Amino acid sequence: MEPSNRQIVIEQLPQGKLAAEHFRLRETAVPVPAPGEVLLRNRYVSLDAANRAWMQGATYRAALNAGQVMAGGALAEVVQSRAATLAPGDLVFADTGWQDYAVLPAARVMKVAPVEPLTHLISVYGVAGLTAYFGLLECGKPQPGETVVVSAAAGAVGEIVGQIAKIKGCRTVGVTGGAAKCKLLTSELGYDAAVDYKAGDTMRALRDACPDGIDVYFDNVGGDVLEACLFNMKVHGRIACCGAISQYDSAAPHGPRGVPGLIVTKRLMLRGFLVSDFYPQRDKALADLQGWVKSGQLRVHEDIIEGLENLPRALIGLLAGQNIGKRMVKVV
Amino acid sequence: MEPSNRQIVIEQLPQGKLAAEHFRLRETAVPVPAPGEVLLRNRYVSLDAANRAWMQGATYRAALNAGQVMAGGALAEVVQSRAATLAPGDLVFADTGWQDYAVLPAARVMKVAPVEPLTHLISVYGVAGLTAYFGLLECGKPQPGETVVVSAAAGAVGEIVGQIAKIKGCRTVGVTGGAAKCKLLTSELGYDAAVDYKAGDTMRALRDACPDGIDVYFDNVGGDVLEACLFNMKVHGRIACCGAISQYDSAAPHGPRGVPGLIVTKRLMLRGFLVSDFYPQRDKALADLQGWVKSGQLRVHEDIIEGLENLPRALIGLLAGQNIGKRMVKVV
Repeated sequence: MEPSNRQIVIEQLPQGKLAAEHFRLRETAVPVPAPGEVLLRNRYVSLDAANRAWMQGATYRAALNAGQVMAGGALAEVVQSRAATLAPGDLVFADTGWQDYAVLPAARVMKVAPVEPLTHLISVYGVAGLTAYFGLLECGKPQPGETVVVSAAAGAVGEIVGQIAKIKGCRTVGVTGGAAKCKLLTSELGYDAAVDYKAGDTMRALRDACPDGIDVYFDNVGGDVLEACLFNMKVHGRIACCGAISQYDSAAPHGPRGVPGLIVTKRLMLRGFLVSDFYPQRDKALADLQGWVKSGQLRVHEDIIEGLENLPRALIGLLAGQNIGKRMVKVV
Repeated sequence: MEPSNRQIVIEQLPQGKLAAEHFRLRETAVPVPAPGEVLLRNRYVSLDAANRAWMQGATYRAALNAGQVMAGGALAEVVQSRAATLAPGDLVFADTGWQDYAVLPAARVMKVAPVEPLTHLISVYGVAGLTAYFGLLECGKPQPGETVVVSAAAGAVGEIVGQIAKIKGCRTVGVTGGAAKCKLLTSELGYDAAVDYKAGDTMRALRDACPDGIDVYFDNVGGDVLEACLFNMKVHGRIACCGAISQYDSAAPHGPRGVPGLIVTKRLMLRGFLVSDFYPQRDKALADLQGWVKSGQLRVHEDIIEGLENLPRALIGLLAGQNIGKRMVKVV
C-alpha cells in the first residue's frame, strides 16, 4: 500500500472562538517534488498563537482561507530531494502546514543541525527562543536592577523571556491566568512575582507587584493586560510588542486606553518586531542560548502532544492557556 | 492707585468640552517676591493643547484644580529681582499661569536672549519649534525621500514639523480639519498634500495621499487619525507621539484599534517624548532653526490675540482648531 498524506484542512474560518469544527482531516496522496523542490516528512509541528492570527486576515503573511491546509511551522526531515543543497536525512525547519508530508522549494526551507533533544530546535533554539532573546534584549533593552514584566509568562516565549531577564540581573514579574499557573511561575519558572490576570483588577495587582513601576514590558497578549501595564510603566519605559494573543481569538479586537496619552506623558517606547528581522544576528543569539542551557541558567519547558490528528485541539488549548512552555505535536 | 494683578482662575474643571464658564477673572494685589524669587510681568502667554490635558488629571505635572490660577507658560519680563542671577528688564520663559504678574523662584524661570520679533521666543525658538525639531528628528528619524504625515498640521508644532521634513528631503502630507485649512496646507505651509479628517474616511484619504504607505507619522492628535495612520504605516515605520489633542477635550478617551496588532506585524516603533527630554541638545537645535528662518527655508506663522481677558476663548478656539501657527495672547 502506498503511504498516504494526512492533512488538516481549514473547514471554515472562525468568526469568534476557534473550535474543532473549524478543521477537518483528509487523506491525499503523498506529493511529488519537481526540480528544485524537496519532499519533507514532518517530525514535530510547532503550535503558535500566531497560527490563530493568520486566520483573522493578512498579517505579515497572506490570510488563510477555508479549504487550505492549515499553515504552521515544523521540524521536518528531507525524504527526497531534487535540489543540490539538501539531501535525504537532512533536518529542516519549514512552513510545511499541518500534514504528514509537504513539498516545498528548497529555497523556502532552513536546514538545521541536529541537537539533543531534537525538540529544542522548536523551543529554545527555534522561533520561540530567538523571539524571546531578540525581543527582550533588542526591543526591551533591560538594564540590571530594572523590573521586567512578561505576559503569557508560562508560554513558549514568555518562560524564556523571564529567565533571560533574570540572567541579565532584572527583577521579573510574570502575568498568567489562574492561581496554579501563578504558583508555577515563582516555584518552577524562576519569576520573582506573579500576577493572575483572571483574578480581576490587573491594574492594581501589577501596581502591587511593581511598586516602583515597570521598566520593560514584554507584551505577548495586548488588550487589557497591555492597558494595565501602560498605566504602570515608569517614565522612559520600553514595551516590546511581540504578539496580541488576547485579541486573536475574538471577533472584535479593541485598542487599549492610554494610547497615545500615556506614551507621551511617560515618554514610552513601543517597538514591534518579528524574529526574522534579527536573523543576521542569529549566530550570536544561539551561542548565548546554548551557553545558558548548558550552564543550567536557562531551563527549557516543552509540552509535547502525540499525533497529527491532535493538532486542532493542541492549538485550541494553547489559545486557552493550557500549555507550559513550548507546545508542539509529535507527528512521527 | 496700586497696580492690580488680573488672574484667570479655574472656576470648575470641565468634564467634557471646555467652555468660558470654566474660568473666571479676578483681581488681586500684585505679589511680592521673597529672597531668591523674582516678580515677573507677563508679556505673551503661550496657548497649548497640553493646557487642556492638565485639566484632565496628572500628566507630567500635577493635575490642576478648581480655584487655582490657570497654568500656562509665558514670555515675561523681570520687574523686581531678589535673586543674583536675574535683573529687572531680563526676559524669561516661565510657567507663570494666566495672570498679569507672577512671583516665582529664580530657579524655576529660564532666561532668554531677546530676538526680533520677541514672539519668536514662544513660537519657532520656543517649546513649539523645539518640540517639532526633536520629535521629528530624534523620534521620527525621517530619511530623504520618505513620506512624513503630520496631524494638527497647521498648528504651532505641526506647521514647523512639515517644513523641517521638507528641508530634510521628505514628501509631506498634512492632516487638518476642513477644506479651507487643507488648501492653506499646500498653498501656504509647504505641504505636498493635505487630508481633511473632517471629510470622513480618513483611512481611505490617507491611503490615497500616501499610496506607498507612511514612513513617519508625527502624531499631535491621537484617536481616529492615529488609528487611520497605523493602518497605513509602512513596515518599520516610526510614530513620534507628541500629543493627543483629539482626546483632551472629551470625557471618554478611547484607544485606537490595531494596538498592538499592527505594531507587531508592521514592526513599528512608537516613541513618546517631551521637549524637555532633549534640552541638553538645545543649542544645536536653536542654531539649526535660526539658520533655516534666516535663509527663508522655514516660515513662521503666529496667531496673536490681544488681552489677558481673552485667554479662555483663545484656548477654547485652539482646541477647536481655529489657529494657524502658534497661538499666543499678548498681555502687554
